[in-house]
Amino acid sequence: MADIDAVAGQFVDFYYQTFDSDRKNLGSLYRDASMLTFEGAQIAGSAAIVEKLVSLPFQKVQHKVTTKDAQPSSGSVASLLVSVTGLLVVDDSPNPLQFSQVFHLLPEGGSYYVFNDIFRLNYA
Amino acid sequence: MADIDAVAGQFVDFYYQTFDSDRKNLGSLYRDASMLTFEGAQIAGSAAIVEKLVSLPFQKVQHKVTTKDAQPSSGSVASLLVSVTGLLVVDDSPNPLQFSQVFHLLPEGGSYYVFNDIFRLNYA
Repeated sequence: MADIDAVAGQFVDFYYQTFDSDRKNLGSLYRDASMLTFEGAQIAGSAAIVEKLVSLPFQKVQHKVTTKDAQPSSGSVASLLVSVTGLLVVDDSPNPLQFSQVFHLLPEGGSYYVFNDIFRLNYA
Repeated sequence: MADIDAVAGQFVDFYYQTFDSDRKNLGSLYRDASMLTFEGAQIAGSAAIVEKLVSLPFQKVQHKVTTKDAQPSSGSVASLLVSVTGLLVVDDSPNPLQFSQVFHLLPEGGSYYVFNDIFRLNYA
């Protein structure tokens, strides 16, 4: 699954680089039918998702990816499921937070957009 | 998304009850096209997936679910994505392990089977 791993890896790198540099630019990765569940809160549509992400109460954030796993999510369409675990460093805190995030990517015109996005912090 | 949450909740309860009581019985939840990525190892097909799960080196295991989130994974089919985080208690160890797991469930004859399954332990 080399191709899928490469696509997933590029997506994950691009997503978190964009998130950590200027997260309002993530809007182009979502569509009106996209869904985000963020710490249990359900948000639908690109505009509302970006509004939610921008409103998160930190100025500075860094995602450090520990694992990324990808699988094709369909036998007929080139969609893929990407599961990420890692650490979140917020406002230079010395105590990073564990997180897990799942993306379901659907193909569109030679690229992909995020149809499903589920984010959780993992408290010990 | 009350229906989806109910279906996801029932699935998650049933999956981990079966895993923790006799995991060889999980085979009925997978099909030949099903995929499991377990700590980075890729396994395909119901028989190989069950063989992998049965071979895990513990006698006694308990999954304690902390969070479960579900979303429809398609605009056209009643498939769903379920993301779980929780604690794994292995052989009565006093130190439970954090885990995260994603299931992609596809409908089949009034029920669902697991098409995608990605499991990771989350080390601090």
